[in-house]
Amino acid sequence: MLEELKKKVYEANMLLPKYNLVTFTWGNVSAIDREQGIFAIKPSGVEYDRLRPDDMVLVDLAGNKVEGEFNPSSDTPTHVELYKAFTQVGGVVHTHSSYATSWAQAGRGIPCYGTTHADYIYGEVPCVRCLSKEEIDEAYEKNTGVLITEYFKNMKKDPAAVPAVLCKNHGPFAWGKDAAEAVHNAVVLEEVAKMAYRTELINAEVMPAPQELQDKHYYRKHGENAYYGQG
Amino acid sequence: MLEELKKKVYEANMLLPKYNLVTFTWGNVSAIDREQGIFAIKPSGVEYDRLRPDDMVLVDLAGNKVEGEFNPSSDTPTHVELYKAFTQVGGVVHTHSSYATSWAQAGRGIPCYGTTHADYIYGEVPCVRCLSKEEIDEAYEKNTGVLITEYFKNMKKDPAAVPAVLCKNHGPFAWGKDAAEAVHNAVVLEEVAKMAYRTELINAEVMPAPQELQDKHYYRKHGENAYYGQG
Amino acid sequence: MLEELKKKVYEANMLLPKYNLVTFTWGNVSAIDREQGIFAIKPSGVEYDRLRPDDMVLVDLAGNKVEGEFNPSSDTPTHVELYKAFTQVGGVVHTHSSYATSWAQAGRGIPCYGTTHADYIYGEVPCVRCLSKEEIDEAYEKNTGVLITEYFKNMKKDPAAVPAVLCKNHGPFAWGKDAAEAVHNAVVLEEVAKMAYRTELINAEVMPAPQELQDKHYYRKHGENAYYGQG
Amino acid sequence: MLEELKKKVYEANMLLPKYNLVTFTWGNVSAIDREQGIFAIKPSGVEYDRLRPDDMVLVDLAGNKVEGEFNPSSDTPTHVELYKAFTQVGGVVHTHSSYATSWAQAGRGIPCYGTTHADYIYGEVPCVRCLSKEEIDEAYEKNTGVLITEYFKNMKKDPAAVPAVLCKNHGPFAWGKDAAEAVHNAVVLEEVAKMAYRTELINAEVMPAPQELQDKHYYRKHGENAYYGQG
Repeated sequence: MLEELKKKVYEANMLLPKYNLVTFTWGNVSAIDREQGIFAIKPSGVEYDRLRPDDMVLVDLAGNKVEGEFNPSSDTPTHVELYKAFTQVGGVVHTHSSYATSWAQAGRGIPCYGTTHADYIYGEVPCVRCLSKEEIDEAYEKNTGVLITEYFKNMKKDPAAVPAVLCKNHGPFAWGKDAAEAVHNAVVLEEVAKMAYRTELINAEVMPAPQELQDKHYYRKHGENAYYGQG
Repeated sequence: MLEELKKKVYEANMLLPKYNLVTFTWGNVSAIDREQGIFAIKPSGVEYDRLRPDDMVLVDLAGNKVEGEFNPSSDTPTHVELYKAFTQVGGVVHTHSSYATSWAQAGRGIPCYGTTHADYIYGEVPCVRCLSKEEIDEAYEKNTGVLITEYFKNMKKDPAAVPAVLCKNHGPFAWGKDAAEAVHNAVVLEEVAKMAYRTELINAEVMPAPQELQDKHYYRKHGENAYYGQG
Repeated sequence: MLEELKKKVYEANMLLPKYNLVTFTWGNVSAIDREQGIFAIKPSGVEYDRLRPDDMVLVDLAGNKVEGEFNPSSDTPTHVELYKAFTQVGGVVHTHSSYATSWAQAGRGIPCYGTTHADYIYGEVPCVRCLSKEEIDEAYEKNTGVLITEYFKNMKKDPAAVPAVLCKNHGPFAWGKDAAEAVHNAVVLEEVAKMAYRTELINAEVMPAPQELQDKHYYRKHGENAYYGQG
Repeated sequence: MLEELKKKVYEANMLLPKYNLVTFTWGNVSAIDREQGIFAIKPSGVEYDRLRPDDMVLVDLAGNKVEGEFNPSSDTPTHVELYKAFTQVGGVVHTHSSYATSWAQAGRGIPCYGTTHADYIYGEVPCVRCLSKEEIDEAYEKNTGVLITEYFKNMKKDPAAVPAVLCKNHGPFAWGKDAAEAVHNAVVLEEVAKMAYRTELINAEVMPAPQELQDKHYYRKHGENAYYGQG
């Protein structure tokens, strides 16, 4: 069932160690078949070098396992909420990548300091608050997803234009139109987090890039007037 | 004698260069057979790429060499003290891994800034004081172990929940139920030390993660209500 | 047409991932045939591991594509301006290399703190301002090149002695007598940017290297009295 | 002539890229045959992957080339001075390794913050001043060596106990009983420089390690009471 989707999710998960985004099993990628309302996700706690495409677990949007030998990632309820609210999103990734997680631990969003950021992410990468004790006790992973999606709704942020978020004291989630683009955005996020960290240490008074420069680079790559690449 | 134990200790030692935890010969792993009261440990000053399973040295809990061609690690008396006091511990590792050693040199424990830390280590990684001149002169390596174990006893810290410590101006020790888990915890420690360093440079006013979030992550992976992984 | 030039430009582009100067497709190298007034440049948005010598695009100094299956790099109009104004330059490279880009994001030129810098770059690596909204809207990439070349002209800087520049909130350009030397200078720039960053964190009051030391190292490698190497 | 020495110097030079101590050709190792008063050194500006044992250049202690197809390293006169004054030294290495060079650029010696440093280097790694314009003009490379050796003599430092130095705004030299030990000390220096940098960023008020701890670790590995390793 959904063999092609499982294969793509497997391949996207294997990109995480390739791009040095994970230590041990600290990350997971999923991707959804929107017609069937079912997504494939990495099993919980299985090492990357033992992973096979068939190990991917199929889950529906009620969070129920549909197929699979293993338990799905413990973060599965977060993925469910992101897929339910962000209806254009086809792939989701969670990592503890080192620089993005450091920003999350510091409780700060990542300002847009340059065109590397603006090429892929429109404006600051937001950092959402910690869950309260009640929210944690009730349903930690589900409420993490609810917090993220309500933040985007309340702040009128478009998840296609801001394809990543930091969870305070935890780490990043990123997404995209499919599993591969989600991982691509996770790599961009880590690189942007690294350069923003260094930027502030070089100039403690630094300000975000001018809005017109951010706009230029974002729209050079996105939307109907894009002219980057071979499209 | 204890061929299986020596093989596992050899393999765990070889993980240190794999995970970039050591330069040259600056690290050692041991593991104990609790029934016989004998542990296997890396020989002193032998390069990793020349190491063979049979080179592991067997030592008893009085610190006497039981078998082996080489001298055991010069840190052997520290391992002895840890095994004697931490009776649930099956493996011990010492490294000079770069970030953890930097915290040790700075004389500071590593605060728990996020879930990566809380997933494996309950609360701060403590940093114990330097030994006095008298303690150094009397028995440096033994007294290092005594200092660590008395600190845990006095502070009522459970070595299973806090599987690592920093020795001021020296470096880290980590442990676990066996040699492989000890090395796993040493890798976690180094990653956590790296991210805590960056976290403070991103936000000089940062506070540790809320206790309820630390509890959630620690108990998601440990104890009878754990639900991470395939257990 | 210009097969040899395309091959050299291809090879120089492939050095960017080798020297860890690029993530994904974030960089481009070109080189010019001065007799024909035509340069070869990387196509836009094509991944490095799919790139072949024949994919290089030929462009003239009016910015028109002369030959090639793909669109040239979106930064092509910047390369045009550099070749037009810097008539001794034979190769140009643009990257988002991490440390150099961090200085650009911080809006600061890189001071000459030592002989590693002075060996290849005479004095500070300048950081030019952001373009205005009008300059962006009119012709972003072209005006980036105009800004750089007018800065060098107004500041009486010799592009042979200062073979690199930072564009504020964007990233570095470097150049040289051919594509290989341009990439060599981009590698030097990244290393110099990394060490200058660390130098300031070690000593916040640091001053540039004495002028006589800068002169000694620069002229040890450049000009008629050079004596470094086998020349 | 001196084929064995040339082979060992070649092998030691090849360790520099292996241990990530050099970019391009920015480093050189030499070793001396004390009986003949001749040392072998890397040729100037030759790339590491083209280097062969026979390319090593033989030079006497008057600085004259005795044998070799190529010019010797431009730093040869510095090596001459070190061999003349440090009569127990058998190998010398110069690099622009990133962290040690950053300390040199910052104009600061590296304090002994821990046992990693104390295991191999007794006390601070000193940073000598820049040469004056007169000293540079007269004989830059020779006077660099004179400055280092006079510093050690005036400060009563034993080059066997302090096997490395930083030259302000330039970079490090290290040495040892032969070429291999010189490179070993250069690796230690880079690791120690990296950790000292991080140590100060973790604790701006940090003090050097207590003298008794430095003594313990240094004399655990050096002198007649050493007990580290298999000696």
